[in-house]
Amino acid sequence: MKLSHLALATAFACGSLSSLGWAAKPTEPVSPIQPAKVTNPKLVELGKKLYFDPRLSKSGFISCNSCHNLSMGGTDNLKTSIGHNWQKGPINAPTVLNSSLALAQFWDGRAKDLKAQAGGPIANPGEMAFTHELAVDVLKSIPQYVTEFKTVFGSDEVSIGKVTDAIAAFEETLVTPNSRFDKWLKGDKKAITAREAAGYALFKNSGCVACHNGPAFGGTSFQKMGVVEAYKATSPAEGRSAVTGKDADRLNFKVPTLRNVELTYPYFHDGEAATLEQAVDTMGRLQLGKQFTADENASIVAFLKTLTGDQPAFKLPQLPPSSNTTPRPKPFE
Amino acid sequence: MKLSHLALATAFACGSLSSLGWAAKPTEPVSPIQPAKVTNPKLVELGKKLYFDPRLSKSGFISCNSCHNLSMGGTDNLKTSIGHNWQKGPINAPTVLNSSLALAQFWDGRAKDLKAQAGGPIANPGEMAFTHELAVDVLKSIPQYVTEFKTVFGSDEVSIGKVTDAIAAFEETLVTPNSRFDKWLKGDKKAITAREAAGYALFKNSGCVACHNGPAFGGTSFQKMGVVEAYKATSPAEGRSAVTGKDADRLNFKVPTLRNVELTYPYFHDGEAATLEQAVDTMGRLQLGKQFTADENASIVAFLKTLTGDQPAFKLPQLPPSSNTTPRPKPFE
Repeated sequence: MKLSHLALATAFACGSLSSLGWAAKPTEPVSPIQPAKVTNPKLVELGKKLYFDPRLSKSGFISCNSCHNLSMGGTDNLKTSIGHNWQKGPINAPTVLNSSLALAQFWDGRAKDLKAQAGGPIANPGEMAFTHELAVDVLKSIPQYVTEFKTVFGSDEVSIGKVTDAIAAFEETLVTPNSRFDKWLKGDKKAITAREAAGYALFKNSGCVACHNGPAFGGTSFQKMGVVEAYKATSPAEGRSAVTGKDADRLNFKVPTLRNVELTYPYFHDGEAATLEQAVDTMGRLQLGKQFTADENASIVAFLKTLTGDQPAFKLPQLPPSSNTTPRPKPFE
Repeated sequence: MKLSHLALATAFACGSLSSLGWAAKPTEPVSPIQPAKVTNPKLVELGKKLYFDPRLSKSGFISCNSCHNLSMGGTDNLKTSIGHNWQKGPINAPTVLNSSLALAQFWDGRAKDLKAQAGGPIANPGEMAFTHELAVDVLKSIPQYVTEFKTVFGSDEVSIGKVTDAIAAFEETLVTPNSRFDKWLKGDKKAITAREAAGYALFKNSGCVACHNGPAFGGTSFQKMGVVEAYKATSPAEGRSAVTGKDADRLNFKVPTLRNVELTYPYFHDGEAATLEQAVDTMGRLQLGKQFTADENASIVAFLKTLTGDQPAFKLPQLPPSSNTTPRPKPFE
């Protein structure tokens, strides 16, 4: 499915865009978000708790939800994140929403999937600053967690593999169907306004869709930041070259999803674009060699705001208490 | 009601304890937690959002829920809290659960009620490090908040008074009825075990209840930390003397609630007691001149764990997005 979208997008980028009208057609390069199918609800519930549990950090203060805040579009709305001991992160926290639809995880794609990603921040000295071993020691000491691991996995052995399995399973449920745009895509012509529809047409006809395609409007490829015009980065983030070792991949980043983009400000890997208007303007100039007029920009922004879907709706999880043998957090060591 | 409990407790402390059996009686010095009565649900909903909103902090990273985490017994389970720029707080974050039942707020009682408390951390340079003016400016710039303030208060003027009204209204709902102990108190004799009931009897007969009384098992008076034996504090917290200016009030603190105490570790104003066993032992020696045996200690701890009630159960709130004019957080300035 991802591949076919890519192929389609490439076709559009190669000149067939003008043949498309702006009404929804079966050949759209984007598709609605499908609701999550939960096959193992107990695994998801365990993952939800772990996602919210700051005891997976050295300080006992930072959880997955600290930087991928599910009250705030799955991000922290900061240029770059705050890590252990208030360290300034090197990169903007991407939204966790719809991240299961991406071809890889992290801006540079260094994790092949959500499970591989989930272990990263726990052990990153600039983020949660813990180790997998210590995190597992904490969980092992909490009787209710041990019971839950046993229920879910059939054994009371706790391991980082099981922890990341559970977190990934929870994250897979964090999709956001039913945006106004998706309703329109499915045939409800009144779901978006004429201006928003015109914005979508412009989005397609200008070539944005060459990269921002598929159900997530992104996440299907790595692309150079600054194609037509160079991106003047102040951030040290190298992008894909840090993974491949190839200089040609410098400033290649995973194309971010545009789903819920109204909520996931600021934009770009360095968070340098504070508003959607800025982001659209910069993308037009640097990626497409196109200076959108104020009116065009406004139409595209109006369209982008139709991509906000149903946000995660669940009860705040209750975390099982530590026991007397649980290693205590060390925020100030 | 608080006064009558105090009077009752004082009577017990003065020697009539031995006349009480350990079965629940109409004359118990404690009473069940009553469910919250919500008279203005829209005010509560607004307060819930504000409680979870880190944009009330300078960094955009710290919300009320950061230190009074409703997934974790309404506290952060740290000895002392982490504030702006990873500052180490001077005192243990008390639980927000059942805090509406206390005679005053903060360990030293410097805020007369929840409304007066709510403004404190926002403007405290060591906590959220913002100002009331800047917090209000942020909220004013967020259209959905302005609409909500108008719906709730009948005017779209946003003020810190309204913000703290809303947060306090939400916090008033954070009571935890239906603990096993309360079920027992209401007549369900099987709700607690014989050992737990014996622990309650010991709790009463030893004098703990002189201070830990009322529906919250505390919060009804200020008491000296270290009555029979001095408390060797390493913390700089002065207690009530910081409010009254009287040296006699040094190390006088508001008696903390014991409701949900299984979840609110570590204990005391300085978080120096890591476990309930330690806390019970220290309290026995310092406040009552009594060395509990290991068996007595275990019984009291078993009883204390029956005080865990229904935790707050609501959907994770969704926060309205910032607008283009919203002042951006400044985590690193």
